[in-house]
Amino acid sequence: MPERIRHSALLTDLYELTMSAAYFEDNFDAIASFEVFIRALPPQRSYLIAAGLEQALDFLEDVRFEPEDVEYVRRHPVFSRIGAEFFKRLENFRFTGEVWAMPEGTPIFAEEPFLRVTAPIIEAQIVETFLLSSLTFQTMIASKAARVVEAAQGRDVVEFGSRRAHGPEAGVLAARAAYVGGCSGTSNVEAGRRYGIPTFGTQAHSFVMAHRDEEESFRNFQRLFPEHGVLLVDTYDSLAAIEKIVKAGLRPKAIRLDSGDFVELSREARRRLDRAGLAETRVFVSGDLDEFVISNLLAEGAEIDSFGVGTALATSKDAPTLSGVYKLVDVDFGQGPLGRVKLSSEKSTYPCRKQVFRKVEPDGSFAGDIIARENESYPNTKPLLACVMREGKRIGQRPPLKDVQQNARSLLSKLPETYRRLKNPERYPVRFSDDLQSRLEEIRNRLIASR
Amino acid sequence: MPERIRHSALLTDLYELTMSAAYFEDNFDAIASFEVFIRALPPQRSYLIAAGLEQALDFLEDVRFEPEDVEYVRRHPVFSRIGAEFFKRLENFRFTGEVWAMPEGTPIFAEEPFLRVTAPIIEAQIVETFLLSSLTFQTMIASKAARVVEAAQGRDVVEFGSRRAHGPEAGVLAARAAYVGGCSGTSNVEAGRRYGIPTFGTQAHSFVMAHRDEEESFRNFQRLFPEHGVLLVDTYDSLAAIEKIVKAGLRPKAIRLDSGDFVELSREARRRLDRAGLAETRVFVSGDLDEFVISNLLAEGAEIDSFGVGTALATSKDAPTLSGVYKLVDVDFGQGPLGRVKLSSEKSTYPCRKQVFRKVEPDGSFAGDIIARENESYPNTKPLLACVMREGKRIGQRPPLKDVQQNARSLLSKLPETYRRLKNPERYPVRFSDDLQSRLEEIRNRLIASR
Repeated sequence: MPERIRHSALLTDLYELTMSAAYFEDNFDAIASFEVFIRALPPQRSYLIAAGLEQALDFLEDVRFEPEDVEYVRRHPVFSRIGAEFFKRLENFRFTGEVWAMPEGTPIFAEEPFLRVTAPIIEAQIVETFLLSSLTFQTMIASKAARVVEAAQGRDVVEFGSRRAHGPEAGVLAARAAYVGGCSGTSNVEAGRRYGIPTFGTQAHSFVMAHRDEEESFRNFQRLFPEHGVLLVDTYDSLAAIEKIVKAGLRPKAIRLDSGDFVELSREARRRLDRAGLAETRVFVSGDLDEFVISNLLAEGAEIDSFGVGTALATSKDAPTLSGVYKLVDVDFGQGPLGRVKLSSEKSTYPCRKQVFRKVEPDGSFAGDIIARENESYPNTKPLLACVMREGKRIGQRPPLKDVQQNARSLLSKLPETYRRLKNPERYPVRFSDDLQSRLEEIRNRLIASR
Repeated sequence: MPERIRHSALLTDLYELTMSAAYFEDNFDAIASFEVFIRALPPQRSYLIAAGLEQALDFLEDVRFEPEDVEYVRRHPVFSRIGAEFFKRLENFRFTGEVWAMPEGTPIFAEEPFLRVTAPIIEAQIVETFLLSSLTFQTMIASKAARVVEAAQGRDVVEFGSRRAHGPEAGVLAARAAYVGGCSGTSNVEAGRRYGIPTFGTQAHSFVMAHRDEEESFRNFQRLFPEHGVLLVDTYDSLAAIEKIVKAGLRPKAIRLDSGDFVELSREARRRLDRAGLAETRVFVSGDLDEFVISNLLAEGAEIDSFGVGTALATSKDAPTLSGVYKLVDVDFGQGPLGRVKLSSEKSTYPCRKQVFRKVEPDGSFAGDIIARENESYPNTKPLLACVMREGKRIGQRPPLKDVQQNARSLLSKLPETYRRLKNPERYPVRFSDDLQSRLEEIRNRLIASR
């Protein structure tokens, strides 16, 4: 399954290249470690599901500057005083570093590093922009999907949002992330081909409208897709359309409601289908759904078998960004890593390479996390970060996406319900280790003293 | 400037392919017209700026099924009863239709069709998903950018949001759309290479942190980029860093504030820079900005020369989706187009191919729009839709993006301020023509009678 995505090193911010030029010209020969974490959860989220790691690793294995990329950089006015050697460095650019990461599907919380890059500082810097947008976008969508799937209480949720995603490629990635988060599949065909995700479809209003009459459109479709037909009934009048299906003796896999009062309509649809001997025909609902709408529909007694969720899911509409950052935590000039911190008013950071330890109760449930230095250890905890890339090469096999999804479902079930309910969840306990705290204080005091 | 984007026809929803199979098998030989419009403006928007047309046309000129794409479709269980001829049709698939559209940069409003496809129904259907996501995403970002640029009152705004965009490719497209909407440039290097957009950069905190001391990081950078250096001052303490710059005798192009009270800090920074003879050094500000923050900062007397706007811009954070739709308006079976409408409860549509007529006052300002049938005419109006593609081939040259931006700025200046101010704008008047209203009634009555 080729990715079809060019992994151009130009998928970066210009300052990564100017800083790289400065490091290069100054022979600033350091190995740097950067960690990715989400600064704070959006108000509407009590946990996140890590996703996007495979695309990040694909990029790191493959990233390079094509000749036209180097040419672009060379001609850029900002590089007018940079010598030819730097552009040669770009021509030969490869990522040769080490990556630690949590597996995709891991529930994560604010401030927890879920990916760490250790590499020559130029390499670590140039890949920042791609890594951040890949990881934060898929994490955001997988997290939204997990909530929608939770609200559906075991019913299938299909991701339908490609047309409203942030461009065509965002639609493909959203479909993948939604599947990681627990969706049964997607309408996005390229996501099906590229990632092996199950793809589903129904009918558009245009199909019904194009035909001279609605019943003809249903008959024609049902004849060709007898086991798969999901007939869209709301183009003119939903209940009247169901009557037409019944009278025509059609036995579709499902009917799809896309507008109106879904509680009333779904119950009446169910009643009419059952009365006509179509107990097997499912009721599929779409149209401006999200986790809250679904939860309310079910609480009010709607009789719905599965949901198509589009815009709200593919854009994480209520929380369309995550405060993902990529922060320098140490620099090694050849005498061992030196911790680094940033002190800016609202946004200080912790130094040193870290590990996240998750406390596991005897029944397997998660009881809180400790963000610690990587060499610490805590009893009855599980370290979440593992080495996934060394010298620029992936370690081990790419897990099948179905396994990633199952792993996510299983891990999420170990997060007590009190931390994951849709409304008023409690805050999952996460703390920094004492060792990390004292390292932070030590460096901070030294920085302040040196001024 | 190669696009590097594979225009796979699989960038679509599965139902486009099942419906296409049904049309094919039933010899449903119709030419269909679909129109793209935004159902309703988000509450936070009083106008939109159309964008994304060039990517839509690139796709239409180039779209095809690669052999592995056809193979994926053939093996999909839903197509098990579809004969080999249909898959041959896919192998030979090209877009051969006609497209009418408004130029990129045109201010548009709810319900106004800004692109129309007329093509054999299978072709028109398969391209729907790509067209919608391309047009609605870029339109959304260009519109957000126009607001941010308006708030900045002539100061430069640079798009900085790639890392928070919905995946790496969304970052490139967001940069393009932000430029159309009036930004001076972007940090996204691939957007610079691909679309010729000016690219800008500053420094990251990591650059300052990696160095043994802050002053050294400033000196090294300034030595290599004497005319372009924008020095980030907030890693430890913004005002202290400015003092270091002054004492070291550096003359950077700008200093960048990224946290703290921007009103106070910018005024104090300006004062200190001026006092040190650095009147030429500009004050650049970034950090969770949007049009409201910028507007307030300037109202409160901040002394800022230019802005870097990231997350809020590249995701249109306060309105991260547009209700873009692609609606069938007529079908032609060889005896002329027959109007089509959808009656579903909340979401009915108007039939027939349309033109949008914009009333232009003698002083050039816009006074309201009429959405009419394409063959109507109105005095003192300008028709906004023009033919841009015929038989699958673009008509005319691709306009330089700089011209698109200038056109957008010029058109927006003709929209009276009352309709475009950031807070409590009035609603720009848009109405449907009487002819269109009566066509809708006629078809609606016929549909209801036929039930």
